[in-house]
Amino acid sequence: MTLSDRYNSIRKHTEHLCNALTTEDFVPQPADFVSPPKWHLAHTTWFFEQFVLNDHLPDYKLFDDDFSFLFNSYYNFVGKRVFRADRGNITRPGVHEVFEYRSYVDMHMQILLQLKSEELKDLIELGLNHEQQHQELLITDIKYILGNNPIFPVYDENIDWEKQENEETGFVKLEEGIYEIGFEGEGFSFDNEHGRHKVYLHDFEISKSLVTNAEYLEFISNGGYTNFDYWLDEGWSWVTENKIEAPLYWHKIDGEWHNYTLGGLEKLNPEAILTHISFYEAAAFAAWKKMRLPTEFEWEAAADKFNWGKRWEWTNSAYLPYPNFKKPEGAIGEYNGKFMVNQMVLRGASCATPPQHDRKTYRNFFHAHERWQFNGIRLAK
Amino acid sequence: MTLSDRYNSIRKHTEHLCNALTTEDFVPQPADFVSPPKWHLAHTTWFFEQFVLNDHLPDYKLFDDDFSFLFNSYYNFVGKRVFRADRGNITRPGVHEVFEYRSYVDMHMQILLQLKSEELKDLIELGLNHEQQHQELLITDIKYILGNNPIFPVYDENIDWEKQENEETGFVKLEEGIYEIGFEGEGFSFDNEHGRHKVYLHDFEISKSLVTNAEYLEFISNGGYTNFDYWLDEGWSWVTENKIEAPLYWHKIDGEWHNYTLGGLEKLNPEAILTHISFYEAAAFAAWKKMRLPTEFEWEAAADKFNWGKRWEWTNSAYLPYPNFKKPEGAIGEYNGKFMVNQMVLRGASCATPPQHDRKTYRNFFHAHERWQFNGIRLAK
Amino acid sequence: MTLSDRYNSIRKHTEHLCNALTTEDFVPQPADFVSPPKWHLAHTTWFFEQFVLNDHLPDYKLFDDDFSFLFNSYYNFVGKRVFRADRGNITRPGVHEVFEYRSYVDMHMQILLQLKSEELKDLIELGLNHEQQHQELLITDIKYILGNNPIFPVYDENIDWEKQENEETGFVKLEEGIYEIGFEGEGFSFDNEHGRHKVYLHDFEISKSLVTNAEYLEFISNGGYTNFDYWLDEGWSWVTENKIEAPLYWHKIDGEWHNYTLGGLEKLNPEAILTHISFYEAAAFAAWKKMRLPTEFEWEAAADKFNWGKRWEWTNSAYLPYPNFKKPEGAIGEYNGKFMVNQMVLRGASCATPPQHDRKTYRNFFHAHERWQFNGIRLAK
Amino acid sequence: MTLSDRYNSIRKHTEHLCNALTTEDFVPQPADFVSPPKWHLAHTTWFFEQFVLNDHLPDYKLFDDDFSFLFNSYYNFVGKRVFRADRGNITRPGVHEVFEYRSYVDMHMQILLQLKSEELKDLIELGLNHEQQHQELLITDIKYILGNNPIFPVYDENIDWEKQENEETGFVKLEEGIYEIGFEGEGFSFDNEHGRHKVYLHDFEISKSLVTNAEYLEFISNGGYTNFDYWLDEGWSWVTENKIEAPLYWHKIDGEWHNYTLGGLEKLNPEAILTHISFYEAAAFAAWKKMRLPTEFEWEAAADKFNWGKRWEWTNSAYLPYPNFKKPEGAIGEYNGKFMVNQMVLRGASCATPPQHDRKTYRNFFHAHERWQFNGIRLAK
Repeated sequence: MTLSDRYNSIRKHTEHLCNALTTEDFVPQPADFVSPPKWHLAHTTWFFEQFVLNDHLPDYKLFDDDFSFLFNSYYNFVGKRVFRADRGNITRPGVHEVFEYRSYVDMHMQILLQLKSEELKDLIELGLNHEQQHQELLITDIKYILGNNPIFPVYDENIDWEKQENEETGFVKLEEGIYEIGFEGEGFSFDNEHGRHKVYLHDFEISKSLVTNAEYLEFISNGGYTNFDYWLDEGWSWVTENKIEAPLYWHKIDGEWHNYTLGGLEKLNPEAILTHISFYEAAAFAAWKKMRLPTEFEWEAAADKFNWGKRWEWTNSAYLPYPNFKKPEGAIGEYNGKFMVNQMVLRGASCATPPQHDRKTYRNFFHAHERWQFNGIRLAK
Repeated sequence: MTLSDRYNSIRKHTEHLCNALTTEDFVPQPADFVSPPKWHLAHTTWFFEQFVLNDHLPDYKLFDDDFSFLFNSYYNFVGKRVFRADRGNITRPGVHEVFEYRSYVDMHMQILLQLKSEELKDLIELGLNHEQQHQELLITDIKYILGNNPIFPVYDENIDWEKQENEETGFVKLEEGIYEIGFEGEGFSFDNEHGRHKVYLHDFEISKSLVTNAEYLEFISNGGYTNFDYWLDEGWSWVTENKIEAPLYWHKIDGEWHNYTLGGLEKLNPEAILTHISFYEAAAFAAWKKMRLPTEFEWEAAADKFNWGKRWEWTNSAYLPYPNFKKPEGAIGEYNGKFMVNQMVLRGASCATPPQHDRKTYRNFFHAHERWQFNGIRLAK
Repeated sequence: MTLSDRYNSIRKHTEHLCNALTTEDFVPQPADFVSPPKWHLAHTTWFFEQFVLNDHLPDYKLFDDDFSFLFNSYYNFVGKRVFRADRGNITRPGVHEVFEYRSYVDMHMQILLQLKSEELKDLIELGLNHEQQHQELLITDIKYILGNNPIFPVYDENIDWEKQENEETGFVKLEEGIYEIGFEGEGFSFDNEHGRHKVYLHDFEISKSLVTNAEYLEFISNGGYTNFDYWLDEGWSWVTENKIEAPLYWHKIDGEWHNYTLGGLEKLNPEAILTHISFYEAAAFAAWKKMRLPTEFEWEAAADKFNWGKRWEWTNSAYLPYPNFKKPEGAIGEYNGKFMVNQMVLRGASCATPPQHDRKTYRNFFHAHERWQFNGIRLAK
Repeated sequence: MTLSDRYNSIRKHTEHLCNALTTEDFVPQPADFVSPPKWHLAHTTWFFEQFVLNDHLPDYKLFDDDFSFLFNSYYNFVGKRVFRADRGNITRPGVHEVFEYRSYVDMHMQILLQLKSEELKDLIELGLNHEQQHQELLITDIKYILGNNPIFPVYDENIDWEKQENEETGFVKLEEGIYEIGFEGEGFSFDNEHGRHKVYLHDFEISKSLVTNAEYLEFISNGGYTNFDYWLDEGWSWVTENKIEAPLYWHKIDGEWHNYTLGGLEKLNPEAILTHISFYEAAAFAAWKKMRLPTEFEWEAAADKFNWGKRWEWTNSAYLPYPNFKKPEGAIGEYNGKFMVNQMVLRGASCATPPQHDRKTYRNFFHAHERWQFNGIRLAK
């Protein structure tokens, strides 16, 4: 596939994910960590306009001067921006204008791709991978918006992600020794994966399957949410302050557990792989099982030996730089490095990760309490 | 005008106010005290469905069972409701469905009006006056939504409300004595105006004009916002904690004062009547002028002697029951009485008040810090 | 009694109230609205030093320059001050130094009183009345500090304030007409009582007794705290957000109601007069009884016709200026006027009010949710 | 030294640290993370009573039943406890009673030590190390209490900790390879140091000196606190929200930097080793220097090659379990393991660490924003 085709395909996929939305669905921001779908559509476009067209296409004229202010996410280098929590209050430009913005930028990108495809390959790849990351956020944000509506609207009744099951059982055992960690080879990767290096791992075993709803229900019925002894101290505060009693999107209706899925509200499927849990819940579950979560290094070393890709898997590693990590200069340097404190690494990929956007060295990261992504649990011992 | 014509006219006016809105504009709730336009359209309809059709039209079938949950505002008697702060996150039902809801209820109201117009007159009048109150909130909420957008969209360039000027000057003097206060006579009035009663007023003078932007600019340039001595203690806290330096919607751009109006961002007109100020600001301005705000009783006693109706006028009266105030039984009793603490009375009417919805005994009320309504200042001494 | 004797007597009484305290008891500030006993002792002294000695005693030397910063309460005119919420963290100067400060100021006040007793009479009277107000706050703050200690220490086992009972029953009726309100005559009074003026009152009846614990228990057992219909809207929010289920200091232990008194934890006495309730609770109780609270004007007009003085009595009047209220110039003007918004008036006096500090025109005021004073309920209809 | 002598010596040292305190100084809790000195004295005693005497001394009678509730810190296993933020409001038991409590427990501990010194050695060592940890917190909490008093009291004018200087300069270089990490050998250690294991380290250099005030002043004068590019994202939020402009206890007075020390307010000594900075500040300083902080593994591997012990040194390692970490059963298991999320490791020891309480495998940990400990910066590259 040419870069130009790849560009078109990925950009179209973002829009495709919005097919089922009403105009109203594009607007709200029900929580600080969620962004309106309209904002995702515009911000990914802004990324190409700001970092690619504006710098590299001769005589390029911005679609609208205000947009660089409205759709900047967190790049301090690029100037002022709308406060994150106010994204849901900006009704204009509207959805229609945002789609026009996309068309305008896409048209100019096609021109640029004819001119400088080779020279700008890396930068454009970064933009495309950035867009793919937002595709996953887009779908999880849509789920959050619809899933917090008391009438539980259906997004797409043909999606069965929440019902996916394991294909394997048992544990894989790895021997003590030196392992190589980090990205190497051809193809795109993020700066936080770079600096391939050696780590020393001790003997460990890691599960070939992810924890299921049935297993988690057993944790709950064994008092998992009421026994402080399973929990990290800050996890226990999170449970008690927020009155957490089950994974996100679970609802007990007339005594029976249901969960909200992208296909609507459904009875909980016990065989399906658990999802939408926080690191705190993952760690508590593991403690209850008298096991633990793997480190991100154990996970990567063992990843060829089990199936992965249905849920982002919480590891017991904090998100920190690899040895010799170098923050790039300028705005692109704000992409990853500045988030390297107080977050935990997730490995693998999920049902909502776009095709070809997964690799075993990928380092995803979220705060320990966050659970609106399709997160799950793989145990180690 | 028949009640049926009056019903149609008022209901249409609400929709007319939304003509200039995009679908996206109907959705957000940028502050707890603001409601989405979509919500106003639905809630006023819900009022007729819940309190009129459901109780009085034989065999009436609710448009949608979920709506009574979604569009209840604060009536505890009518059951659970969406948390006030979450109104902006409910994208479905959409704008189109809300208009269908209005049509459905209007059609059934017309049937009912043929059957029981006389019997239900008072209740329907309450619903219409309720809708008129929401018309004013609708327009001020729209101004808040658009006015907090950094690109300052125009709502209607033909509206000149913020430019209105005084027609009179000087003071009116009233003599000490007993005055009668409260509603009396034909026509609609709210329960909080009832119980006409005597009050004893001492000599006072009240201005025939409202404070202008020019006068308020003088207050600002005399250090009005930096000298604690003019302010009530809680007003001074409000100023310092929120870094208040000017009325709402005022912006200093390149050294010159502008204000956001429904016609867009404009240079401040010094002759225009000041608006969008809090009670705290009104009281501080009066202190600086070595005058005071009138009580609501002084205001009502003098109201025939000056023009009013361009701005809601802060009085120095707390919102409290009149002697012999009776809270009606049931849900209708929640309309006014339960708010009678910690709010201040505003008298008169504003440029945003619907036609025929004003009378001199009308008691409007807001918290001392609220200023997104078209509020102004009339001085007394 | 000479002014000098009166000065000594009141100053000694403040110290007498602290006899039962340990050094540690003088220090903490368990809530923003509470002040440490040490602070009360110093602040009342600061008032005499700042407003009397410093201005009027030739060659007076401040006890310590830092004290004017440390012990200013809310007088913006007198310069910077310690944030109210930090008063409990200032361990030095210690209790001993504060008593030395008192002695030093008292000694110089005696000198001044020999010189200028007549000339400074009004200012010194203000200082003494200020000190008496703090005596009441001192005792209620001590109760709050000890009453929030899980081991419930005894302050003075001989105090029986919480057990006081009514001496009268029935209602007094007053006729419609003009009544004179406000202070008149000899002796001290605060500026907020001044401006004697006429008010027109309609017929009303007012109870000769205060509500008892037994009556309030009936309200509770009738679902008083769970039925929103009795409550003002902000009162209902206060109840639900703070999980209020009983008056302050009430504890249900093994199924039986106890209350913490200055004499320690005791079984609740049903015949005793209810105390430590908020305005919200007073208003809800009155609504449940199908009566109401009196206005402060009704209260004053009727006050000669019933016993009062055991509890501060919530009225349904907001704290607002009387006609012709004039705020004094300078720091003294900050005493009362700047608090005239968002608070409710209480009339009468309480068991904790110092002797000779009560009069029927006295206007006490607190926010609607505050209840650590000895507040009670008198009903009207 | 016998265990009995060691017990006495450590217990006396705690009391010795309080010699300079007034009774009032023992009471307050000016921030949630600070505990009153009185509480430290009692809590360390409670530890011996609860975990040693109560379980192991036949017929031991608790000093006071309430104390186990009042002086539990965070052990959920031991039942209810006073909310952490309320510790400063508990005036009784007083300081004198707390010293009696210490004597009572010490006396019984001496009896027990005669009986079962060998059998209980490990548990008593844990209690003594626990007490030593609180000695450091005691001194830093005292500094916080006095240092937030606007009159800046002196604790001990002979202490010169804040003036300590480096004794070495330059960098040490270590070669790539496998290193052994974790505690091994005789003597006490905490569970979080256990599980000696191999780590693979790449080449690195680490400074032999700690960052000085002069170097940090250069960072400040180079715009260190105003250039987002040096900061982690959450660090930048911390700086802007809290208006941080300098290390804790630094005050610019008449244009000159001073710092509050245990010896009182002093002019800043440029040659002294920097202290009281957060992890965010340490990381920003390192970024400005184009270096980085060492990991805790690098630190431990290199520790024999430089002097340490004057400041706790922030590492770029999150506080996480070592391979094969086992949480002990029961209350003792709450000591360390449950805090292993969202905190950063500090290595070394500080001027406030008690003698013999330091070792190179010791893992201290705090949140990234905390800076009231004697923290400093050692750079790596």
